[in-house]
Amino acid sequence: MRLRLLVEYDGTDYAGWQIQKGLRTIQGEIETALKIIVKKTVRITGAGRTDAGVHARGQIAHLDIDMLQNLKKLQNSLNGILSSDICIKEIDRVNDDFHARYSAAAREYCYLLTRKPSALLRNLSWYVPYTLNVKQMREATSFIIGKHDFRSFCRVVSTVKNHYCNVQEAKWIEKSETLKFIIKANRFIHGMVRALVGTLVDVGRGKLNGDDFKEILLTRNRIHAGQSAPAKGLILEKIYLIKLGFEANALAIPILCL
Amino acid sequence: MRLRLLVEYDGTDYAGWQIQKGLRTIQGEIETALKIIVKKTVRITGAGRTDAGVHARGQIAHLDIDMLQNLKKLQNSLNGILSSDICIKEIDRVNDDFHARYSAAAREYCYLLTRKPSALLRNLSWYVPYTLNVKQMREATSFIIGKHDFRSFCRVVSTVKNHYCNVQEAKWIEKSETLKFIIKANRFIHGMVRALVGTLVDVGRGKLNGDDFKEILLTRNRIHAGQSAPAKGLILEKIYLIKLGFEANALAIPILCL
Repeated sequence: MRLRLLVEYDGTDYAGWQIQKGLRTIQGEIETALKIIVKKTVRITGAGRTDAGVHARGQIAHLDIDMLQNLKKLQNSLNGILSSDICIKEIDRVNDDFHARYSAAAREYCYLLTRKPSALLRNLSWYVPYTLNVKQMREATSFIIGKHDFRSFCRVVSTVKNHYCNVQEAKWIEKSETLKFIIKANRFIHGMVRALVGTLVDVGRGKLNGDDFKEILLTRNRIHAGQSAPAKGLILEKIYLIKLGFEANALAIPILCL
Repeated sequence: MRLRLLVEYDGTDYAGWQIQKGLRTIQGEIETALKIIVKKTVRITGAGRTDAGVHARGQIAHLDIDMLQNLKKLQNSLNGILSSDICIKEIDRVNDDFHARYSAAAREYCYLLTRKPSALLRNLSWYVPYTLNVKQMREATSFIIGKHDFRSFCRVVSTVKNHYCNVQEAKWIEKSETLKFIIKANRFIHGMVRALVGTLVDVGRGKLNGDDFKEILLTRNRIHAGQSAPAKGLILEKIYLIKLGFEANALAIPILCL
């Protein structure tokens, strides 16, 4: 039977989601825990492959398992074995045609900046000591809404061929000491959110203006964008799932909203 | 000259605020960092002595220093020396009659419960897997508003003689997966918030009802209250300072509101 997992993790001490030989990864840890419980190798598939140091509040994964398990007990056993920086928040049985990656209609990431150094948020945010012009950042951000070629914001070493992403939402939320970037798109390419945030911070600092930013998007060359913002400020917030058999966009369901 | 510090810390790896021989404490770490910078011993006084494992977002401290310092530079030097789980958010020069403890008119603590296990909040919250009747918890909480003898909620080993505290505010804020207890009082006695939260969770679970809770408060005996909630869910949120020379309550100023 096929199971869907909702996974939260603090990526600080991990080399990312995807299993890699000799490295501690989220997928690797969950598969190891599963093997201890079901006594055989079970592969899991995640909706989004987060990079080293990136966190998730709403990662979705699926797996196939033979035995009929008591799902609550399975969840408790997994959480008991996993280190406390990874936890399985939900386990549900799903139809066999559910697929964590292909059933995902959209992903939402959140990037957190702090304006003052913060001890409590030290592993979940990027402290930016400069004065930022948020109005200019918002204006530049408006250019990325819609379907664009995001090659300028893709990691150079990436093997991805299609750089088109359809950005459905991108906004900055300002609170007293934090500035949060929320971005939702059908897909993201390698390093995209961190490159966007790094470049938009350059806009906020006045190193670039809105037209420069638009120009960078249009050049389709990573060399023109700013430095990547650090991994630790990035959280995979939600996966919007399609209802199988229907149009994806029409029925996207926010499954986690903390 | 006298300086006021606004301090944030993750108390996970510390034996509390107050300096103790052979133990790593917040006060000890800040005094060590100050000694490195000003080349002599400088004592600091905090507004609230948080216990081992308890955090602060708005701890206030004061210290006296000889030289006229560039305060921004001093702040940066301190944050550079301190481990990233302690940070100085503000440094201001204050009048010599300012005193972190005596100029504090009220303190506000926050206790965070989570209803699902959380990887990101694992060190800042208490995961309570039981169904809680929040209405009952709120009803019981209403009994502590005002001036009461809180001996029933004071650590037994405490040497404190006066157990009267004036609770100005106490409320529960419910979000999808978290339940937050906010309490503001002129003073708190040893272990008070954690004993209150532990006992109120017993009310939420149905082990006690509102009348039992009221009765526990009136018995003035710690033996009747519930277990203390774990330290890790507790944050010293704000210190309300008096404006010197005026009535305390009339001019309490919220100095930090994240």
